[in-house]
Amino acid sequence: MKIVFIGSGNVATHLSTALKSSGHTVAQVYSRTLAHARELAGKMGTVAIDDLQQIDRLADLYIFSVKDDALSGLIARMPETEGLWVHTSGALSMELFAARRRAYGIFYPLQTFSKQREVDFREIPLFIEGSSYDVTDRLSQLGREISDRIYCLPEEKRRYLHVAAVFACNFVNHLYTLASDILEKADIPFEVLQPLIAETAAKVMEMSPWKAQTGPAVRCDEKVMRKHIEWLNDPLMKNIYSLLSENIRRHSERQQR
Amino acid sequence: MKIVFIGSGNVATHLSTALKSSGHTVAQVYSRTLAHARELAGKMGTVAIDDLQQIDRLADLYIFSVKDDALSGLIARMPETEGLWVHTSGALSMELFAARRRAYGIFYPLQTFSKQREVDFREIPLFIEGSSYDVTDRLSQLGREISDRIYCLPEEKRRYLHVAAVFACNFVNHLYTLASDILEKADIPFEVLQPLIAETAAKVMEMSPWKAQTGPAVRCDEKVMRKHIEWLNDPLMKNIYSLLSENIRRHSERQQR
Repeated sequence: MKIVFIGSGNVATHLSTALKSSGHTVAQVYSRTLAHARELAGKMGTVAIDDLQQIDRLADLYIFSVKDDALSGLIARMPETEGLWVHTSGALSMELFAARRRAYGIFYPLQTFSKQREVDFREIPLFIEGSSYDVTDRLSQLGREISDRIYCLPEEKRRYLHVAAVFACNFVNHLYTLASDILEKADIPFEVLQPLIAETAAKVMEMSPWKAQTGPAVRCDEKVMRKHIEWLNDPLMKNIYSLLSENIRRHSERQQR
Repeated sequence: MKIVFIGSGNVATHLSTALKSSGHTVAQVYSRTLAHARELAGKMGTVAIDDLQQIDRLADLYIFSVKDDALSGLIARMPETEGLWVHTSGALSMELFAARRRAYGIFYPLQTFSKQREVDFREIPLFIEGSSYDVTDRLSQLGREISDRIYCLPEEKRRYLHVAAVFACNFVNHLYTLASDILEKADIPFEVLQPLIAETAAKVMEMSPWKAQTGPAVRCDEKVMRKHIEWLNDPLMKNIYSLLSENIRRHSERQQR
């Protein structure tokens, strides 16, 4: 397939690398910032553009991989082309394409991508949706070339997936940040927490998270929790502590019923 | 060393296994529930007791590894013995021993232990505190036999460590649970989140967590956040979503200054 990337961020970088490795051709990389387009186009051995009018009209697939709030504007300004248009956003509907296209879809890899970290794309769950049976089928075939975990998921389910990912990734990472802040105040290096973080994640590869729950809140150890809240200086951190502890307690009561 | 374990839970199980592997003798395991004491004593090839009066008076080391709220009661009822008394709690002071003993300390392994999961004890950070220079030294020596990561940490710092661990482990695991709940409602298997969870944890082995932050809150993507909150049914989950997102935003503004 001849593929054009609209966007050159983390998702575009990892997805284009995987598709190129599977023998597909990345024909162009567009970004409104030419330097960004060039960075990815250089890796792909292809052309960087920052003007939508220069888009190759004859590609098989156009992958829109841009910030969510930029997507509908880009779709509106995109010139007419051949081929299939898809986007990689978990939160947005494929119907954003409906006013412009007959054949469109979603190609959403569920992972937290950073340019500086390599990932094994075959392990990444890839969620597909197509405007027709035929489109879904073509996207699934393409997906299977780069990942072993292809799921066809309609929008009304994908939205829950996306919220769940915010909890399991973005919010989890923020708790790592808060833990790091707390340690910093006591001059303790963050590395002391790394084995704990690794094991906490490793556990839920084997058991359900509610079975893996440990700590003062699930033990209803009020004394320790009161001390912890007292030791936290920041009011927002105190709030987060109370709210999550309360929710853990409530959850564990529900499980015991 | 001849060691007696007061308690037979997850920490006692993993710690006694590591100490026995290093050539020490576990002389007895006490639990108020004899079946629990027997389970661990069986693994150690040693004696199980459920009566503190049967405690061997001539051990070198007594390791109290029980629930935080049970500790002071046990210390009060413990008979006079030879040797050193220590506990394994991150949240409690070693001064709980002061009324009973001259030589005492802390031997706190920072990890989330489950009986059914093996862990490499050499990787586990072990935090030591002693009632005297000599005690600290003896505990550090013992610690180095089972772990490569020994830290001497006074109580006023250990408490921050303990709160940080609650954020990085217990609260993180609860977010996994909430993510799992959200997926369950959409009939999506939890396993689709596992690569994301593994990568989120793996990232902070290499970069600081605030640099690893991704997602709608750090991008200030208000549209997506409003939708997410709308899609969550549970008021407590809505609260958690808002509070963590607000804190991520606040944190990222602080970093940019």
